[in-house]
Amino acid sequence: MTTDSRTATTPAADLTDESATADPTGPIPVLPGGAPRLDVAQVSEALLGRWAEARLAARERAARPELHRPLDASVAEHRERVFQQLQILVDDDVSHPMLPEHLGGPNDNGANVAGFEELIVADPSLQIKAGVQWGLYTSAIIQLGNEEQQQAWVPPAMTLQTPGAFAMTEIGHGSDVQSLATTATFDPTGGDDGEWVLHTPFRAAWKDFLGNAAIHARAATLFARLITGGVDHGVHCFYVPVRDAEGELLPGVSSEDDGEKGGLNGIDNGRLAFDHVRIPRTNLLNRYGDVAPDGTYTSPIESPGRRFFTMLGTLVQGRVSLDGSAIRASELALHIAITYATQRRQFSAADPTQETVLMDYQAHLHRLLPKLAATYAGAFAHEQLLQAFDDVFSGRAEDPESREDLETLAATLKPTSTRLALDTIQECREACGGAGFMAENQLVGLHQDLDVYATFEGDNTVLLQLVAKRLLSDYTDELKSVDRAGIGRFIAQRAEVLAKRHTPWARLGQSVSDRGNARRAFDSMRQAEFQEELLADRARVKVEEVALALRGAAKMSPADAAAEVNKHQVEMLDAARAHADLVHWRAFTRGIEALEGPGAEGSRTVLTDVRDLFGLTAISGDLAWFLLSGMISTQRGRQIESDLRRLLWRLRPHVLDLVAAFDVRPGHVRAPIALGGEQERQDEAAAYFRAQRASNDSPVSEKTLRDREKKARRAAEKRDGKR
Amino acid sequence: MTTDSRTATTPAADLTDESATADPTGPIPVLPGGAPRLDVAQVSEALLGRWAEARLAARERAARPELHRPLDASVAEHRERVFQQLQILVDDDVSHPMLPEHLGGPNDNGANVAGFEELIVADPSLQIKAGVQWGLYTSAIIQLGNEEQQQAWVPPAMTLQTPGAFAMTEIGHGSDVQSLATTATFDPTGGDDGEWVLHTPFRAAWKDFLGNAAIHARAATLFARLITGGVDHGVHCFYVPVRDAEGELLPGVSSEDDGEKGGLNGIDNGRLAFDHVRIPRTNLLNRYGDVAPDGTYTSPIESPGRRFFTMLGTLVQGRVSLDGSAIRASELALHIAITYATQRRQFSAADPTQETVLMDYQAHLHRLLPKLAATYAGAFAHEQLLQAFDDVFSGRAEDPESREDLETLAATLKPTSTRLALDTIQECREACGGAGFMAENQLVGLHQDLDVYATFEGDNTVLLQLVAKRLLSDYTDELKSVDRAGIGRFIAQRAEVLAKRHTPWARLGQSVSDRGNARRAFDSMRQAEFQEELLADRARVKVEEVALALRGAAKMSPADAAAEVNKHQVEMLDAARAHADLVHWRAFTRGIEALEGPGAEGSRTVLTDVRDLFGLTAISGDLAWFLLSGMISTQRGRQIESDLRRLLWRLRPHVLDLVAAFDVRPGHVRAPIALGGEQERQDEAAAYFRAQRASNDSPVSEKTLRDREKKARRAAEKRDGKR
Repeated sequence: MTTDSRTATTPAADLTDESATADPTGPIPVLPGGAPRLDVAQVSEALLGRWAEARLAARERAARPELHRPLDASVAEHRERVFQQLQILVDDDVSHPMLPEHLGGPNDNGANVAGFEELIVADPSLQIKAGVQWGLYTSAIIQLGNEEQQQAWVPPAMTLQTPGAFAMTEIGHGSDVQSLATTATFDPTGGDDGEWVLHTPFRAAWKDFLGNAAIHARAATLFARLITGGVDHGVHCFYVPVRDAEGELLPGVSSEDDGEKGGLNGIDNGRLAFDHVRIPRTNLLNRYGDVAPDGTYTSPIESPGRRFFTMLGTLVQGRVSLDGSAIRASELALHIAITYATQRRQFSAADPTQETVLMDYQAHLHRLLPKLAATYAGAFAHEQLLQAFDDVFSGRAEDPESREDLETLAATLKPTSTRLALDTIQECREACGGAGFMAENQLVGLHQDLDVYATFEGDNTVLLQLVAKRLLSDYTDELKSVDRAGIGRFIAQRAEVLAKRHTPWARLGQSVSDRGNARRAFDSMRQAEFQEELLADRARVKVEEVALALRGAAKMSPADAAAEVNKHQVEMLDAARAHADLVHWRAFTRGIEALEGPGAEGSRTVLTDVRDLFGLTAISGDLAWFLLSGMISTQRGRQIESDLRRLLWRLRPHVLDLVAAFDVRPGHVRAPIALGGEQERQDEAAAYFRAQRASNDSPVSEKTLRDREKKARRAAEKRDGKR
Repeated sequence: MTTDSRTATTPAADLTDESATADPTGPIPVLPGGAPRLDVAQVSEALLGRWAEARLAARERAARPELHRPLDASVAEHRERVFQQLQILVDDDVSHPMLPEHLGGPNDNGANVAGFEELIVADPSLQIKAGVQWGLYTSAIIQLGNEEQQQAWVPPAMTLQTPGAFAMTEIGHGSDVQSLATTATFDPTGGDDGEWVLHTPFRAAWKDFLGNAAIHARAATLFARLITGGVDHGVHCFYVPVRDAEGELLPGVSSEDDGEKGGLNGIDNGRLAFDHVRIPRTNLLNRYGDVAPDGTYTSPIESPGRRFFTMLGTLVQGRVSLDGSAIRASELALHIAITYATQRRQFSAADPTQETVLMDYQAHLHRLLPKLAATYAGAFAHEQLLQAFDDVFSGRAEDPESREDLETLAATLKPTSTRLALDTIQECREACGGAGFMAENQLVGLHQDLDVYATFEGDNTVLLQLVAKRLLSDYTDELKSVDRAGIGRFIAQRAEVLAKRHTPWARLGQSVSDRGNARRAFDSMRQAEFQEELLADRARVKVEEVALALRGAAKMSPADAAAEVNKHQVEMLDAARAHADLVHWRAFTRGIEALEGPGAEGSRTVLTDVRDLFGLTAISGDLAWFLLSGMISTQRGRQIESDLRRLLWRLRPHVLDLVAAFDVRPGHVRAPIALGGEQERQDEAAAYFRAQRASNDSPVSEKTLRDREKKARRAAEKRDGKR
């Protein structure tokens, strides 16, 4: 029987010891004297990051009832409510930090984005509607316009005097912005010194899914192909009035309502089309491209490709804020589900007078804690992204490389965190059973609203592909930097590494040293260096494999090369995800290392367990790959699942501390099941049964009676037999 | 460079050959002459199963606009609409087949359930509201009541004269029905010959989440603890009027509205509570337990445990119909997403004048086709379940073993298909991008409604645990059937098998024979026997591992044993899922084998690819386990991902045929993106660009100009150099 390695390597005694630290009588586990414990205030502060002040103010704001998502509102009611809420934000001058100095602001982009992210716990519709108005529409004017344009159009945008749409996406082209079909053709004979003629040539070129477009927008920042003198200079951005002061569409402008959506119904998404609409020459936002009255085109950036991507670079702000708000949404969902799970009881296998709290079931820990760990990793990674964003947007780091790094980091994190949020919210919803399905408990609404976060501001699949391309090009650059003579050596060396990978017992040392000592194997898996090495090697080798597989594509025709790349698309996405895991793991680890002062030891110990849970979950999720690559021995591979379960039990006593550090407050939480309702019901029921047991006149169960009778009968038979 | 096994083992030439069968110019791939093709009509018929007639009639009904889910309706409007729709079903006498002969019906339970399942494509609220009224409330009277009770209460239930609630779940007890706290205490002095006093002792004992309870229910089948003469005989079912003819609550009855939910808002879910409400003695549905006027309790089933589970056995109907409707919902979602993916174009890497259809991207095939394969498996498995259900409910197979098998099968399939439906709908939603988020395109509403299918009629986690327990007990029985002397031998033998598993190179023969021949390895992986052996061995060994790990629990105290079982809960659920994969794989294979007649060869060939995709996806999803167990060699393990990708390309030309066989019709599909809207837009845009190219006065792109200039400059330099 000793051949069953699973029981052999995780002695039950260990688990019992650890799970015993959870006191089954109360919702908050009592830690045995001196055991490490999270310093909630300290970790909470660490999570707040550099823009703590902005976040704290925003959290207070987000708790205000007048900003909350309504229940059972019609689309029309919800839209009107959110539009009114925007006015509240204007009154509080909430987006002032985004303004550059010459427009009278502090140019504090980090604070601005941090503050908006926090709005998601009030109502995601509010966060996104504000994002459309200030993060996209106003921001486009600031980033792409000249100072005169900014002075003219930014102030009314800030005060909501001009609600605006960001008219980029077309029905036919979402992700492929370069192929937009709306045209802006310059007519030098029009107006004072020339006019643009904006035109939607066919149905698929209608602008679609635009927030504010169905009702509220008075103007739009419109992306269209700039055509002058018969030359198409590619997509540029134009400032276009679309409705008059009474809200009537201007001549030549058409609009349609997108109607009900899967969520975010507080936003009036809609379509816009233009039938030879004329605007002045000076309505081109001309920072990266301009046309003189005679129709001559000029640009400070020669390459049309680079020019286009520079203009699009302003979009990164949206990705940054979605990353942060998705993490905040996960925190809210986990707060609700974990609070409920520590109060809700069901089934009484262990104790006939007391049912078990959900959180004490292994399956419940297993479904929620890895999400909690990933959310922590996401929070620390987001802080890194936000700092990189602030550096670039404030102008402190405006070199092309910093911009490119920022864009890659945003493209890495946004798909990961929005995926995590959706999966976490869904898991939390299901973990709360029927109660989780009630709208008042927030989880379903949160899922509905967050759903589209996976698609807008860069579709998740498309973004991950961008990341993969960047990783591939970095890898190729690396190859290029090796001198001619070295290239042969380099390739031979990498080939040798790959060959080694294919011998699963290559790292025999690993298994020999582990053998027969589960505790040592467990400890070594939890070594930071070990996890980092595995995750880093995986990220690198996956890129390398694709690069090698595609090495012939450079010499192919474009069509063949595209087909070849397509044959490795799934691997490319996989490599990008492996990279994302590594980025998260490192950010989490740095976050832990940065903890200092009194209380840091406990916090570090607990968070290191959480980090290990994150790292080992990632490794376990790709275990077949690690085994096949020879990076993990079968001995260790067999160990990892039980190690993960062991971590779950170690973390069990800390779950409430871990969610407390998220600082999700009443007002953010409006779910009755997470505001004491469940505990109250449990207490009332327990008191009833206690009283009944004490009164001695409670009904006896038929089963008890039958068991007693059986016993008596047997005793009688025994007596009879003896006689 | 030959060490890169992935490229070495999947020659690009193979892939190119296969992907080339997809004609990139049109949405429907042209198959090369003589290539196997699905016979859509034949496969469609196979999917219809035994109750084809009932399904076809129901599909026609489900296409009627007056039965469709409304867009942007308030909760109140939606509820009223669905209540009116129920009346349409009454007018059509839709649930007549469920009635037993003595109530004037054909007792055709399979036809009845099949018909109701199809309603999900009209509006899931309608399916579930009908399920509450007839599948639960009326069915409880039929299954648990005597003939007199049936005659009195079933006819008004059928005609909707008495809308009813099925009052089982309490706020405090959902999955653990045995612990319900509502009491029904017999008072022999009440009424003519005794009365029941129904009482809700505390808040957590309120009945909750009941369809019809908030507004429409006039009566309820109430589950409460039967107490007589001071003895608690456990949960029984009572018939209780709750509202008068005017819809006013009867004295002592309280009700609350659950309000807005995550979906299914056409149903008025709510709560009920009882304050010493009195009903006649004869309102106990007394098939499995009765009380005489003097208070004496009798039951045809002696064991209180078995009696309880027998009464609960009627619940299996709900699980069966959720399984079928979840599969139907997946079919609808796949129809929409795959239709769109074969028309929608984005990015033009391969051809500058023609963008690529989404379905030709590897990542898109990868996200949708495994779900398609699982849906096929689910459809065939459901037909098996429905037949087993019909056998039992019609009385043809009413032995306890058939009932138990039916319950295990339902508990296996319902969690699998409801999980699949949610994941499939979400994947389809994201695969349709922004368009997928629009309510009119159906996917978001479908996800919202299907969400709770994972929870109600048996929480998925709880059901899978039931399955695991059954598998464990079967395994233990098997052990028991071995005679005393044999047990030692049996255990030694299993131990040897387990030991072998732990030597990953045990099946060296496997890798040796495969080595260096990718095509042979691919073919052998696709052998049905190979897949079945792997899936069956996995299901068995996973149960065995848990059984061996728990072998000490039998001798422990109940509390310790419960803790020990809890430590293996995740493994138990995993074993149940492995079992579910096997059941699905086998049902799919049998479904293919049953195809006969002309056209069968093509259908079998294509469906076998789909089945292989299902089987290999399951194996690949648990590949680490197979590698660690030694059941799959590293050689083959390294092969499986590229095999899966190869299958995706082989199936690419068949995707439209595969969804066509689902027979999802206009009316079921109301999503504009899947009704030709997208194709129309694509055609219009393509025509515009064709005309532009022909006219010769289209704008030239700046990039083209620059490239031309560069070339001219270089040519001039060359000339200059030569001079």
